[in-house]
Order: sequence, then C-alpha cells, then structure tokens
Amino acid sequence: MPAEEIIMTENLWKRVARVRSASPLVHSITNFVVMNNTANAVLAVGASPIMSHAHSEVEAMVALCGATVVNIGTLDEYWVETMIRAAREANRLSKPWLFDPVGAGATPYRDEVSARIIALRPTVIRGNASEIMALASANATATKGVDSTAASGEAVAAAKRLNREFGSVVCVSGETDIIVDGERTVYIYNGSTMMTRVTGLGCSASAVIGAFIAAAGADGGDILEAVTAATALFAICGEIAAESAPGPGTLQLALLDKLYNITEEEFSTRLKFTDMKIFE
Amino acid sequence: MPAEEIIMTENLWKRVARVRSASPLVHSITNFVVMNNTANAVLAVGASPIMSHAHSEVEAMVALCGATVVNIGTLDEYWVETMIRAAREANRLSKPWLFDPVGAGATPYRDEVSARIIALRPTVIRGNASEIMALASANATATKGVDSTAASGEAVAAAKRLNREFGSVVCVSGETDIIVDGERTVYIYNGSTMMTRVTGLGCSASAVIGAFIAAAGADGGDILEAVTAATALFAICGEIAAESAPGPGTLQLALLDKLYNITEEEFSTRLKFTDMKIFE
Amino acid sequence: MPAEEIIMTENLWKRVARVRSASPLVHSITNFVVMNNTANAVLAVGASPIMSHAHSEVEAMVALCGATVVNIGTLDEYWVETMIRAAREANRLSKPWLFDPVGAGATPYRDEVSARIIALRPTVIRGNASEIMALASANATATKGVDSTAASGEAVAAAKRLNREFGSVVCVSGETDIIVDGERTVYIYNGSTMMTRVTGLGCSASAVIGAFIAAAGADGGDILEAVTAATALFAICGEIAAESAPGPGTLQLALLDKLYNITEEEFSTRLKFTDMKIFE
Repeated sequence: MPAEEIIMTENLWKRVARVRSASPLVHSITNFVVMNNTANAVLAVGASPIMSHAHSEVEAMVALCGATVVNIGTLDEYWVETMIRAAREANRLSKPWLFDPVGAGATPYRDEVSARIIALRPTVIRGNASEIMALASANATATKGVDSTAASGEAVAAAKRLNREFGSVVCVSGETDIIVDGERTVYIYNGSTMMTRVTGLGCSASAVIGAFIAAAGADGGDILEAVTAATALFAICGEIAAESAPGPGTLQLALLDKLYNITEEEFSTRLKFTDMKIFE
Repeated sequence: MPAEEIIMTENLWKRVARVRSASPLVHSITNFVVMNNTANAVLAVGASPIMSHAHSEVEAMVALCGATVVNIGTLDEYWVETMIRAAREANRLSKPWLFDPVGAGATPYRDEVSARIIALRPTVIRGNASEIMALASANATATKGVDSTAASGEAVAAAKRLNREFGSVVCVSGETDIIVDGERTVYIYNGSTMMTRVTGLGCSASAVIGAFIAAAGADGGDILEAVTAATALFAICGEIAAESAPGPGTLQLALLDKLYNITEEEFSTRLKFTDMKIFE
Repeated sequence: MPAEEIIMTENLWKRVARVRSASPLVHSITNFVVMNNTANAVLAVGASPIMSHAHSEVEAMVALCGATVVNIGTLDEYWVETMIRAAREANRLSKPWLFDPVGAGATPYRDEVSARIIALRPTVIRGNASEIMALASANATATKGVDSTAASGEAVAAAKRLNREFGSVVCVSGETDIIVDGERTVYIYNGSTMMTRVTGLGCSASAVIGAFIAAAGADGGDILEAVTAATALFAICGEIAAESAPGPGTLQLALLDKLYNITEEEFSTRLKFTDMKIFE
C-alpha cells in the first residue's frame, strides 16, 4: 500500500477514535421512519443523539449540540420551518450541519423545500445519486447542463456543481460512495447490496456523519476527511454485517453491533478507497 | 392435493415473484409506531416504500406510487385530512388503496374517522376481528344486525357486509386469516401466536398487501388473489420465524429475513388454505 | 437471604405474573424515537400498548386504559397540550400516570413544560439522575438547596424532594436504579452498562412501569412495589441480554426476548436490591 494511503487510513481511524472519546451531541431533525435506528447508530459509534423538532426549542437545541442533521424524509410544513430555523442558527453560531435530501425529485414540494435549505449552504450534503442529481438540476441555471452521460459520472458532476455553488462537501451514497470537495474526490468501495433492503441506512449514515463533523468541529479539522471516515466506517460495518446475515432483519442489528465493536485492524484491513486530486 | 389447490398455490407464488421483479412503489400514510418495520417489510418483499403525509405533496405522492396504504394507528386532525385527500386522489386516478382501521371501536373519534374513510370505498380493508366488526356495526343500518353469534362467524359476517356495502376486498387477520370478496371466502391457516407479541405486524401485513395490490394494479389482476398471496406470505414467514425464535425480539427480525429469502418450495410446502365459493 | 428479602422478591415476581395475566392496556403519549421498542416492551411483558396523541380522543383514551405514560422526548406545542389534558383526565378519573422528563434541563422549553406537567402530581416520575436533578432544582424554592454533594446522593436528595412536594413515587435510573417514596428507598443493582448504548431503554422502562401501575391500580396495590418490580424486571432482563450480546443491536432484541420468556427462577436468582426504610 502506498505511504499516502497508509497515512490516510490512519487518519480516518483517528476520526473514529475521536468520536468515541469526545462523544459529541448530535441534533437530528429527521424522519419518523428512521429515528430509532438513526439514534442507535449514533449511540453505537460512541456519540449522543438528540431528536427534537419543536419551534419552541429549535435554536436552543442547535446551540447545545455539536452538529445538526436535517433530513426531509417525512417533511411537512411545521417541520420544514424547524429545519430552516435550525440551519440559520447553525450558520449564525458557525456550527456544522448536514442536509439529507431524502426523496428530492419525487415531488415539487420536496424540490422547493430542498432549494430553500440548500440555499443556506449546508456544511455537508449526503444523498443517493438520484437525489444529488435532482438537487443539482433543480438548482442548475439554464446554461449548465449535466456534463456527463454515465450514471456515476453524472452523479459526480452533480456533486461537483453543488460543491462549487454552495460550498458543501457532497457525499453520494451507492455501491461506490463518493465524497467531493473542491479538487478532491474520494471513492469508497466497501458495502453490500443487501444494505439497500434495510430502510434508512442512508439516513443512518447521515446521522453518523453528523457525529463525525461534530467531533471535527471541535478542533477545526477538515470536513472532507470527517465525512470520509464516517462513510467508510458505515460501509465497512455494513459489509461485515452482511456477510453473515441471512436477510435484512439480521443485517440491521449486526450493523449496529459492528459500529459498536469494530477494531482498528478490521477497519484498516477492509478499507478500499481511492483519493483523487484533480486540478480542473 | 386437488388440482385446484395446486393451481391456486402456483398463482399465489407468481404474485410474490411479480412483486420482486416489478418492485412497485408503495405509499404509506401510517402510524409512528410501525413506520420502521413496515418500511422494512415492504423492502424485504422486494418493493419500495415511501412514507409521506404532508398536505403539500399528498396528491403528488399518490400519483407517483402504485398503491397507497392508509392506517389510522396514531391519527390526528392533520393526518386525517391527508388520508382523506389521498383516498380521493387514488379514486380519481383509479389506483388501488388499502384502509387499516387500527383501533376502530376504541374511541368515538376513530369510529367517526373510519366511517369517513370507508365511505370512500377502499380497494382493500384489513383489520383484526374486533376492528372489522366495529367498522361493520358502526356502518350498519338499523335493520341489519350481526347475523352470527360465533366470534369468527361474526367477523366473517361483518367482512361480508363491508364487502357488499363498500365493494372492498376485506381481510380479517387472526389465528386464521380470512379474505372475503363477493361469494368467495379464503381461509389461511398459517402463522404463530407469538406474532401477537410483536407490535404492528398487522400494520406490516397491510403494507405488504399494499405492495401486492400495486403490482396487481399494473396488469389488472384480481385483487382478492393479490391480498391472499400477501397474507399467506406474511403468515408463512411469521410461522417459520417463530419456530426458532426464543421471543418476539428475534421473531421480528427473523420475519424480515424470511420475507426476503423465502423460496417457492418453502411457500408451497407450508401453505394451508381453503378457498370457498358460496353462492348465497 | 433474610426472610424480608425473600418475601419482597416473591412479591415482586407476583407483580410480573399479574401483568401477564391481567394484560392491562397502557396508553403512551411518547416520543417518535422509541415508540416501536416501547410498544414491543409492553407487549413482551404481557400488557397491551396503545399510542395515541390526538386532541380529539385524548380523554377517551385515558378513560379506556389502565395507566397513561407521558414522555416529552420529542415534544412540541401540540403534543404538550395532549399531555396536559391526559394528565388532568387521569387525575379526574383517579387513574395512575407516569411522567418521563426526557431531556429535562436541556432547554428552557423542556423545563417550562416539565414544571407544568409535574404540577399535576404524577403518580410516578422516572428519569436519569440529571433529569431528576433538573426537575427538582427547577422546582426548588429559594430556601431549598440540593442537600448532598455526591452525585448519586444528589439524585436521591432530588428524588426525595420531588416525592415530598408532588407526592410522586420517583425512580432514578442509572447503574443503580433508585426508587423513592416517603421514608422508603429501594436500590436495584442489576443491569449492564451496554444498555446505555441502546436508544430509549429508559423510555421502555417507563412504559413497562406503566404496565405495572396499571395492573396495580386494579387492586389498589402499592405503587412503590409496582415500580420496583418493573424496574427490577427490566434491569435483570437487560443484564441477561447483555451477557451474550456482541453489541447494542443484539442487546435490544435479546432484551425483548427475555422480557417475554423470563422465569421466576431467573428473576429471583439474579435480583440484587436493598430496601431501606429511613425515618428522617
């Protein structure tokens, strides 16, 4: 393994260890479907989840926590107001926050809400390829077409456009996870297709990223590396869990177990990634 | 096994295979308690769940999906409006929809809401015996009493009355599951009593039926057979899961595993049913 | 073992058996994160959960059930009104109800809501040490300081103050669970630290206590013993589940299994407690 990859692998694991020792508070304004396993994923990696959506305390919760996760999976008019206020308060306090645009592109309402949230310049955006592409094209001006025809190429192009326009680190989840920031693009090749048969694992990945950017925020660490560490951890744990799971029920709990007890050796041995720096 | 039963068994399995290959979108407006395992059950059978309740997108979601499931488990005034609008839009677009009257009979509010929803003529109604009987008696006119005194007989009578008045295929869940449509009544004898100690398995069964009627809708297949296939699949998977489960925690996940990996042989060997055509 | 402890152990198990045979209805107005495992815990101990929050049926639900659990984990303005109305109706009907002050002390809104709820004199209050101390100090008048500096000592002092001012049996969850009522303080030493890595086990414990006070209510049994039995059962089942669990995913389901299948022998052999009567 090249020296650069060894150093990156060690740095990513240090991020895992830091979440375990710092145990940051992560505030989620997320969807009803995944609240339980999302909270359990945050606990399993060693952080502390808080779920809260009341207008009467949203600014106080943002202030209390190290990061806020905004997920529109089961959005409605009340919750959207909470999300907007949370994003504004996070910005005011210079706290990192993540936007998970669940179902972007499915309805005009989701697109309109996504555009409002993304305009607030999330620290991180994480979604699957179709969500990221929907976000990018909804926010595209007439002169900017999608500049690639290959599916993953299109997603990367969409991610890069969002990164340029809104300054967000963008994570595209899929068989290969892709993290984009400026001239740098990291590809992670871990995971399992069975993970697509468990609801809300993408949402859980977002919440775990929330824990990692909360821990990074404390020492001004770079966000791309925090997102990469969280994404790699989640994919590796899912991969290990899937190997012995007869189906998605078992996978879900084995993933939580592994997030809790994974060792540096398991992490380092499994991790497969490419870290590309392209000066365009 | 009589030739008719063999053919029916094969037809039911074809429905399972069709859901896996068509992977229909199923829209649920359901209760908070079961959203996670309901979504996981829909994924495990090979379909795609969408949970959405916002007034701002309800009609768009109904239009996007193959079927809509309306479940009043944790209803409130806002959610009831969503449900009514979803049912109306499904009717307007000739899309199948299912009503799960959780807790019907428990409070006057649930009875009033149930009456409003049922008047919109659901494609399918699924509930336990007491819910189906509550629905039928709340909608009974003065001259129609319950025409049977035996408990399961009463439930069948209630199901038949609902079928006659509202045109819905009615599924009564219990130790024996009963599906009623016109002169036809199917009894399914699979399942396990331990299933009653896991919350929301009835709701999950409703969501799985949603997937099957969404797949049926695509080719105009008959709804009774789709409901029967989904109900049989769910009961058989629960039965298999319960055999090796020390308690309801394990049962819940083993059921999801089995919904995902059940084979035609397991399904056909286990299935126990009676298909009665009575001309009354 | 002293004769008093043997009798107490037998009495506590009788409470477990009574919940299984009486299967009381327990009404929860609780948070979105834990609704599923909370309902499953109530089912696993043999009771029947109902989750309902609509203004249109809150009084009817309180009347229908044996006890009501009020949990502010994901409170908002609508849900708080439901909680207040439920508590008032429970008082009017002399039904037992429990208050779980999740996150008390985290935001001014939670403190304000907690103060309104606690003023309605819950039958039982259950929280962790910091929540109980937040409740007690928010409700402290100027002349009453916290009268102990040791952490668990402070929590006991806070519990005693709440008990004196509001008449509630107070349960402080932690490595040692503490139940306070009048001159009596029971300490339970069972459990596992891994339980803190599963979300909402405190909320599940509250719901199980709800089942036990509902069963106690039926024969006017003493509330402290019901709370103690539920708390001991939950801690013992968690302890057993943790011994064979590689992580919190497995722990969560093994705990449900054990709540369902625990025997009197397992319960009696494991139980470690102290029952102190101090006349102050």
